[in-house]
Amino acid sequence: MTNEVFRKTTREAHPDDTVIEAGGVRIGGGHFAMIAGPCSVETEDQIVSIARAVKKAGANILRGGAYKPRTSPYAFQGLHAKGLELLRIARRETGLPLVTEIMSAADLPLFEDIDILQVGARNMQNFDLLKELGRSGKPVLLKRGLANTLNELLMSAEYIMANGNDRVILCERGIRTFSDTLRNTLDLSAVPMLREMTHLPVIVDPSHATGLARIVPPMALAAVAAGADGLMIEVHNDPEHALTDGAESIRPEEYEALAEKVEKLREALR
Amino acid sequence: MTNEVFRKTTREAHPDDTVIEAGGVRIGGGHFAMIAGPCSVETEDQIVSIARAVKKAGANILRGGAYKPRTSPYAFQGLHAKGLELLRIARRETGLPLVTEIMSAADLPLFEDIDILQVGARNMQNFDLLKELGRSGKPVLLKRGLANTLNELLMSAEYIMANGNDRVILCERGIRTFSDTLRNTLDLSAVPMLREMTHLPVIVDPSHATGLARIVPPMALAAVAAGADGLMIEVHNDPEHALTDGAESIRPEEYEALAEKVEKLREALR
Amino acid sequence: MTNEVFRKTTREAHPDDTVIEAGGVRIGGGHFAMIAGPCSVETEDQIVSIARAVKKAGANILRGGAYKPRTSPYAFQGLHAKGLELLRIARRETGLPLVTEIMSAADLPLFEDIDILQVGARNMQNFDLLKELGRSGKPVLLKRGLANTLNELLMSAEYIMANGNDRVILCERGIRTFSDTLRNTLDLSAVPMLREMTHLPVIVDPSHATGLARIVPPMALAAVAAGADGLMIEVHNDPEHALTDGAESIRPEEYEALAEKVEKLREALR
Amino acid sequence: MTNEVFRKTTREAHPDDTVIEAGGVRIGGGHFAMIAGPCSVETEDQIVSIARAVKKAGANILRGGAYKPRTSPYAFQGLHAKGLELLRIARRETGLPLVTEIMSAADLPLFEDIDILQVGARNMQNFDLLKELGRSGKPVLLKRGLANTLNELLMSAEYIMANGNDRVILCERGIRTFSDTLRNTLDLSAVPMLREMTHLPVIVDPSHATGLARIVPPMALAAVAAGADGLMIEVHNDPEHALTDGAESIRPEEYEALAEKVEKLREALR
Repeated sequence: MTNEVFRKTTREAHPDDTVIEAGGVRIGGGHFAMIAGPCSVETEDQIVSIARAVKKAGANILRGGAYKPRTSPYAFQGLHAKGLELLRIARRETGLPLVTEIMSAADLPLFEDIDILQVGARNMQNFDLLKELGRSGKPVLLKRGLANTLNELLMSAEYIMANGNDRVILCERGIRTFSDTLRNTLDLSAVPMLREMTHLPVIVDPSHATGLARIVPPMALAAVAAGADGLMIEVHNDPEHALTDGAESIRPEEYEALAEKVEKLREALR
Repeated sequence: MTNEVFRKTTREAHPDDTVIEAGGVRIGGGHFAMIAGPCSVETEDQIVSIARAVKKAGANILRGGAYKPRTSPYAFQGLHAKGLELLRIARRETGLPLVTEIMSAADLPLFEDIDILQVGARNMQNFDLLKELGRSGKPVLLKRGLANTLNELLMSAEYIMANGNDRVILCERGIRTFSDTLRNTLDLSAVPMLREMTHLPVIVDPSHATGLARIVPPMALAAVAAGADGLMIEVHNDPEHALTDGAESIRPEEYEALAEKVEKLREALR
Repeated sequence: MTNEVFRKTTREAHPDDTVIEAGGVRIGGGHFAMIAGPCSVETEDQIVSIARAVKKAGANILRGGAYKPRTSPYAFQGLHAKGLELLRIARRETGLPLVTEIMSAADLPLFEDIDILQVGARNMQNFDLLKELGRSGKPVLLKRGLANTLNELLMSAEYIMANGNDRVILCERGIRTFSDTLRNTLDLSAVPMLREMTHLPVIVDPSHATGLARIVPPMALAAVAAGADGLMIEVHNDPEHALTDGAESIRPEEYEALAEKVEKLREALR
Repeated sequence: MTNEVFRKTTREAHPDDTVIEAGGVRIGGGHFAMIAGPCSVETEDQIVSIARAVKKAGANILRGGAYKPRTSPYAFQGLHAKGLELLRIARRETGLPLVTEIMSAADLPLFEDIDILQVGARNMQNFDLLKELGRSGKPVLLKRGLANTLNELLMSAEYIMANGNDRVILCERGIRTFSDTLRNTLDLSAVPMLREMTHLPVIVDPSHATGLARIVPPMALAAVAAGADGLMIEVHNDPEHALTDGAESIRPEEYEALAEKVEKLREALR
C-alpha cells in the first residue's frame, strides 16, 4: 500500500507513538490503558459499585454499554440515554473517564461529554459514522471487525483522521475463524504488526475475543507481553445475573489479581 | 434457535414463499429477479445506455451505486444525490425499477422513490439503519456480511421485520475465508439452506463474490441451479474505464449470453 | 507462480483437457464422471445392492470406503482388505470400475487392481503417499484439503505427476470456514478457476462438503452448472443404519432423480 | 465430548500435568522446553555452530529438519538420512537432545535414536503414521493442523496414546484464517484451553505461525504469558542464505535476548 492510500495512520506520516489524552488519562507511548467495567450499564448501584471496585484494583478508565448492538432485535438493547446518565454518576463518584459505544451519528449530541466514543466491531466500516466521529474531534476507540484485515482497520482509522480527528485508539477483539472452542480467535499478532504499521495506540479486548471468563486473564497477560498499549476487560460484580455477556465477565477480585500480574509483567518487560 | 428468537423470518411463521413486489416486478415464489447494472453510476450516458442494454438482454431491475461504501476515504465515494437523479432518468427511459445502496438512515428522504433499498455487506449489522428501514416500509435487499452466519443474516432481517416491514430480499455475495484465488468465497450452499430456513426470497451476487468477470457467468449459472430466486450482476459498457469494480464487470453482450443460459437452465430445472 | 513451480499441471504445459481412462470409463474433456456409492463398504449384500441401484440410476463408477480415515481411533476404521474384496465382487456383478481411498503407501500392493485410488482431504499434503502414487502410475482422485488453496492442490498434483503419473483427477469437497450451518463450505468457484488453471479433470463431492443429504442434490446441480467434470455422491440404501456418514447419504431413488436432472442440465448447457 | 471419545488425553483421565522426559530433558508440569535450531539441517558446520549458539543462549533441545514437507516437489526436500547424521553430531558436540520431523512410518528405523519425533501440521491426521508412532513408544511432538480444531488435535493424540504411547507434546503453530498480514494466525487462546482440556504439555511455535522474524519475539513472550510449557523457535546463523524459511529465522544473538526475557517473564508470573 502506498502513501496515497495510507496518509495519516502510518509510521512514515508520524514516526513517534501517538499519545492520546482523554479525561485526564493518557494512552500510548508508554502510557497503559486499564479499561474495565460491565458489558451493559444496568443500575446506578451496579455501575457505581463496579466503577469503585475496578478503580481500586487499578483501572484508569471505566467502560459500560448504554447502546448495545445485539444480534437479535428481541434482546435487551441497553438503557440508552438513561445509561449514559448512570455512567456520568459513576464518573462523578470515582473520577474515572468513560468509554462507551456509539452506534449512530444521530446520537452524537447525547455523547458530548463522554470521554472516549467506542465504535464496535460491526460498525468498523460504517463509513458515515466514522466521518461524523472524525468531525467530532473526540477520542475514538475503533474496534477491528470480525473479518477485517489490519489494512482495513487502518483504512477505517484514515476515515476518522481524514475528517480532522487524530485521536484514534485501535482495538483487537478477536476474529472469526473455523475454530469452534471459543467465541472468536484473538489475533494477538495484530499487536506487534500494528505497532510497526502505525503510530496509533493498540489495545486488546480479551473478553469479547474469548467469551469465557476463565480464559480472559491468560489472554490479557499475553496481550501485554505482545506489546499492547492497554487492556479492555469486562468486569461484573454478579456475572451470573448480568443482562449481557455474563459468561465472559470476571469478578472485581479476579480483576484485581489480574491487574497486579499485568503490573509485574510490564515491569519484567521494561 | 427457538421461535422466541426467530419470530417472523422462519417457515414456521410463514410457510409459503414470500413474493415481494417492487416497481411492478415480483421477486420470490417462482418470480426470478434479473438485477443488472454498473457498480457505480457515473454519467447520464453511461447509466442510460447500460440500462437499455441490460433491459434488452433480459434484466428486469436496474442496479447502480450512488452512495459507495469504499474501504478508503480517498477513493471515489459515488455521485450521491446526483447519482440518484441519473438513476431516475434511466428508470424513466427504460421502465426498469431501481435498486441502490443506502448507507445511512439520515439519507432516507433522498431515497423516497427508489424501488428497492440495498443494505451492503458492511452494514448488515448496522442495527440503527435496519430499524429505520423497517419503519420505512420499503423493499430492502439485505446483503450477507463477509463473516456472518445464516442465523445472523436472518436476525438482521428480523430487525427490519420487527419494525413493521415484511419486504426483505436476502442476498448471498461471498464470505471471507483463507482461500486466496478470488476476492471472496461464494457460499452457494447458503441458497438451499436459506430456502429451507426462511420464506424470504434469496438472490445471489456473483460479481462481488468473485471479483473476476470471467468467473461470473459460471457462478451465476451455479446459483440458478442451487435454487436462487434471482441474480444481481455487475454490467458495464466499458469495464476498463469503470470508476469502481471494473475487473468484475461483464459487458452487455456477455450479459445477454448469460441471460439466455439462465433461461435455458431454469427451464431444464422445472 | 512461474512455470518453474507449476511444470505439468498448467494449461501452458498441456493446453487441451486431459481425458483419464479408468476401468473403461473416461473422465474429462466432456466425459462426465457419475461416481456413487456408500461412504463405507459394510457387507456384500450392501455394496452389491447399492452398486446395482446406482448403476441403474446412471452412475458409471462405484465408490466405497474400505480404509476409513476417522477423526477418532475408537470409531469404525473400515473393513480393510475384506472391504476391497467386497468391492471387487460388486465390480464383477455390475461392471462398474472402483474408486476407493488409500491411506498409506504400504497398502499399495492390496490396491493393485483398484481402478482409481483416492487420496483423502487429510492426506492431500502427505507427500510420501503422493510420491508413491506417482510411481504407481494408477489413476488418482486427489481431494482438496480443508484448508488448502488451489495452488496447493495443484502442487500436490505436481508431486504425483513429477513422479511419472499424469492420471490425476482433482476433487473439490468443501473447505473450513467460520460458517456453522453445514459441515463445510463447498467452494464451487474452485471449479471454473481450476478449469482455467489446469488441464486435469475437476469433479465435486457435495456429500462431504455439506454433510446433509437434502442439500446434496441442489449443490450437485450447482456443481454441474459451474462446469464440473463429474460428481461424487454418497448413496446408501439404509442411511439411518449406515456405519459412517449416514446423515449425508441419499437413497438410490433420490440419486436416480438427481441423475436425471444432471442429464437435463448438461443438455441445457451444451 | 464424552469419555468414550476422549479416553486418555483428558484431565479426567489424568488430573496432573504429564511430564515428558526426552534425552534427559523434562517437559510439562513446570518444566519449560526451549527448543531452537534451524528449519533445515544444511551442513555439519551450520548445525553444530547453531546448536552451540542456542545452547549457550539457553536452549535445552535442538530442532532441525532432515525430512522436509515442502509444498512443491521441485523444492529442496531435506538431506534425509545424511541430515539425521549431522543432527547426531550436533547432539554429541552439545549434549542437546534432538527433535526432528518424521513424514512416513517407513522411515521409523532411521529415527531410532532420535529423542523426539515431530509430526508436522500437514500430517496431523495421517492416522497410519500416528498409529505407528503410538507403537514406537517414542516421545512425539504433535503439531496442530492449519484447519484443525482443538478437539481434533486431542483426537490425534488419542491415536498415539491408544496405541500404547503416553509421551505426546502438543504444539500450536498457527491456523489458516482470512487474515493476510502474516503467514498464519497464531491462536494463543489454544494454550489456556488445551491446558484445561488435557494433561499433556502444550508448546508454541511462533516462527511458522508468523513467518516473520521480527514478530517472533513478541509472540514468543505472549505464548509464555498465556501459559505455554515451551517454545519452538527457528534460529539460523545466516538467515539470508538459509535453504528454507530464512524470513522467519532469528539470529543467535536475537535468540539470546529473547531467552533472557522469557526467563524474566516466567519469574514475574510465578
